[in-house]
Amino acid sequence: MARTLEFYFDFISPYGYLGSLGIVEVAARHGCKVDWRPTLLGVSVMGVMGLPPLGETPLKGPYMANDFPRCFRLQGVPLKMGGNGSMAPLPAGRAFSWIKAQDRSAAVRFAQRVYRGQWSEGIDMSSVDNLAAAGEALGFDRRELIAALDDPEVKALHRASVDAAIELGVFGVPTFHIDGELFWGHDRLPHVDRWLATGGW
Amino acid sequence: MARTLEFYFDFISPYGYLGSLGIVEVAARHGCKVDWRPTLLGVSVMGVMGLPPLGETPLKGPYMANDFPRCFRLQGVPLKMGGNGSMAPLPAGRAFSWIKAQDRSAAVRFAQRVYRGQWSEGIDMSSVDNLAAAGEALGFDRRELIAALDDPEVKALHRASVDAAIELGVFGVPTFHIDGELFWGHDRLPHVDRWLATGGW
Repeated sequence: MARTLEFYFDFISPYGYLGSLGIVEVAARHGCKVDWRPTLLGVSVMGVMGLPPLGETPLKGPYMANDFPRCFRLQGVPLKMGGNGSMAPLPAGRAFSWIKAQDRSAAVRFAQRVYRGQWSEGIDMSSVDNLAAAGEALGFDRRELIAALDDPEVKALHRASVDAAIELGVFGVPTFHIDGELFWGHDRLPHVDRWLATGGW
Repeated sequence: MARTLEFYFDFISPYGYLGSLGIVEVAARHGCKVDWRPTLLGVSVMGVMGLPPLGETPLKGPYMANDFPRCFRLQGVPLKMGGNGSMAPLPAGRAFSWIKAQDRSAAVRFAQRVYRGQWSEGIDMSSVDNLAAAGEALGFDRRELIAALDDPEVKALHRASVDAAIELGVFGVPTFHIDGELFWGHDRLPHVDRWLATGGW
């Protein structure tokens, strides 16, 4: 049976997007399945850790604003930010959870569309209209998707995912979880690759 | 003329130690000189950024305590921590600044001894006695080194280095500075390597 790696993501993070691109290749190389699991940095970083948002942190915020475009250029990933780079990730996260409850494979394709739209195509994926369009392209009903965003059951489902991620120790994205080990950062993908190849070190 | 890369470090950080090992090879490959420059995370992280020490940060602290030993194992670097892993880096930093003012090359060797002692050999490099021994091994007078740690001129010199690092935008270690670009983290060494090879991207 194929091993399953958990991939924790939040659409708000451009590093999460780079991680989502990189894990496809790494997992495929090792015949490993990927379970996409949403979290929210607003809950882990601001709520649990008591830290300000990265972009507003002195010194580190300006550094990051230079580092992530450099990472995109190095990897040849187009950078064109929706909503001028600021994103409200909650609606997209809830839409993901709603789709995942119905079709896990479609949920991955949806997440990939949201990430690509927000960070490579300049589409504001905070927008309910744009989320609905992304869902429609995958065969989901536009009005059902929009209704799901305010459905208490969907909200609870999404929040339970976020709580479970934090309970596991996930604080940033991308985070990869395999064999009880957490790997945080797209810069840890070579570690994940090696871990999958060797079974640990 | 050889290019010079600035390497910002604080003995308190095991990642800084890994960076100090890695930059030797990367810089040599490109015929690049390395200028070792001290900073203090206590000033940048706690003072300027207003954040708690990494080890005490919820979620991230426990993650780091697992991540850095994994990084050591992956790179085949022995991990044996002085002072049970907690370190007061100020005396070592001042001793470095005092030595650097006399002999830059000896200062690098001193820093390498301090880092290796603290993180690979289980020697508590918060200890003035151990710092004096490290200086003595490089030909510096034991009593002069100890006196320097409380010399107002040495204190001011060291503090000026820290202030200059922060003014540049350095908040964590290791940080590498070349061509006006900052690269933070030993995991960015491949970026530094590529930057030096290509002149940017």
